Amino acid sequence: MERVEEASDLRRILASVRADGRRIGFVPTLGALHEGHLAHVPILAAHTDYVVMSIFVNPLQFGPGEDFERYPRSLDRDAELAQKAGVGLLFHPQVATLYPAGAETLVEVPELSAQLEGVVRPTHFRGVATVVAKLLNLVRPDLTSFGQKDLQQLVVVRRMALDLHFEGEIVAVPTVREPDGLALSSRNTYLDAHDRKAAVALYRACRAGFEAVVAGERVPSRVEEIMAAVLGAFPRIRPDYAVVRRLHDLKPMERLVGRVALMVAARVGSTRLLDNLVMEVGPDGVRETLA
Amino acid sequence: MERVEEASDLRRILASVRADGRRIGFVPTLGALHEGHLAHVPILAAHTDYVVMSIFVNPLQFGPGEDFERYPRSLDRDAELAQKAGVGLLFHPQVATLYPAGAETLVEVPELSAQLEGVVRPTHFRGVATVVAKLLNLVRPDLTSFGQKDLQQLVVVRRMALDLHFEGEIVAVPTVREPDGLALSSRNTYLDAHDRKAAVALYRACRAGFEAVVAGERVPSRVEEIMAAVLGAFPRIRPDYAVVRRLHDLKPMERLVGRVALMVAARVGSTRLLDNLVMEVGPDGVRETLA
Repeated sequence: MERVEEASDLRRILASVRADGRRIGFVPTLGALHEGHLAHVPILAAHTDYVVMSIFVNPLQFGPGEDFERYPRSLDRDAELAQKAGVGLLFHPQVATLYPAGAETLVEVPELSAQLEGVVRPTHFRGVATVVAKLLNLVRPDLTSFGQKDLQQLVVVRRMALDLHFEGEIVAVPTVREPDGLALSSRNTYLDAHDRKAAVALYRACRAGFEAVVAGERVPSRVEEIMAAVLGAFPRIRPDYAVVRRLHDLKPMERLVGRVALMVAARVGSTRLLDNLVMEVGPDGVRETLA
Repeated sequence: MERVEEASDLRRILASVRADGRRIGFVPTLGALHEGHLAHVPILAAHTDYVVMSIFVNPLQFGPGEDFERYPRSLDRDAELAQKAGVGLLFHPQVATLYPAGAETLVEVPELSAQLEGVVRPTHFRGVATVVAKLLNLVRPDLTSFGQKDLQQLVVVRRMALDLHFEGEIVAVPTVREPDGLALSSRNTYLDAHDRKAAVALYRACRAGFEAVVAGERVPSRVEEIMAAVLGAFPRIRPDYAVVRRLHDLKPMERLVGRVALMVAARVGSTRLLDNLVMEVGPDGVRETLA
């Protein structure tokens, strides 16, 4: 596995990969790798010939008072995990590489970004869209993967890539879960034992919402009530939202049909966690699906 | 010359150009071609193997009450001129191609965009940066040219391309002028005979500022006074600004040194015109230069 810090080295290596006619897969990460990240590698490898992973704790996507400083960093351990997983090139740039002196350009997807997570984190998705635009231009991947766990991020990035005509596809990778259902997240390391137990509430809420739809419920507000009730049964959980949205633009629906997302965000202690479940609601029934 | 309206056709043709190892030059325009646009073609052709021109009157860069509707459009005449000039591919997309259904992504260079033209046209450069990002992703040129006449646009686009790590270079093409010095502009067609005569004031102001610097003046405010005095001598001219700025970030300077831009904007009748002159102020003297 190559390890690269400079944009020029990255470009040189990828130019030669491309010259060999090899297709490039890409997974951007913030590091602190866990199984949720590593699951991207075989999926990318199945469709491309060379997998690039970036590790970059992007200051622009952290708001004031958020956990930029204490966000877990473990580059050498990450590099080992990435190599074992089959990554061909690990790109871990300095901040000054992605944000050259005087940099001020911002990429925004304003409507999609303002709701849900955007209410609590008003500049978060602007930071994500901006850094992903930079990375897509540097890597020029044929296929880029984002974890379904951060569903709004996936939808924002897809919108951005479509609107700005980035070449290459964007795919979702299924959420990896602990045995009790908790979605893997680098922020789970912040949880103490009690909070860790309570954290399963988010997954339970999504499942309960899904089961209601499977049982025939098609009114979004009723599904949301069921999800909220599950969260409410966990005293350590302070919900931010538990909503039902149309997948492709995250807008509220009047009746559930087509691709629908159940989305939950909540605080457990001082840690904010997310989860979601995406389903296809069709005339022949309801099935869970990838975003 | 190929004429292409669809992004997929553009990509297919350019993929085969690239597969032949040919380098791609690109000049984005709003059409209504004049000698100022056509001057880009031989410059691009000198450094690349295949010249792409786009013609697109971009709604996002026109503010409310601006001249989007009446902006001159002459596609067939433009195509003829482009072909004669040596363009290999003319890309003239529909609005729905560059802005697909639901598109909402914006690219902003907020500080550079807020000053000078941005005071009068607060959303203009956001529209420019957004459409140029789209076009750069569609064309993926090795070399892209912008006219020096719209100097702030050039500086904004350079900043955007650098910040977002677009591959390929951006070059300025010298302003083409009428015999009396008026910079060519598609908006010159709006001028009546009296306004047309007065419009030379902008060029005269830039020259007067330049001559003052050549004569030894190094205090920006004094150069600006000289430029303002020239504009003031033309009763039909209502100046917006006549300023001296550092070229690379358009910031005010305390003393003139290095690459310096003299920038003028003024209304003549209901038409807004721009002009500028860029110079290198060195220890051995002052010379006019390309931005």
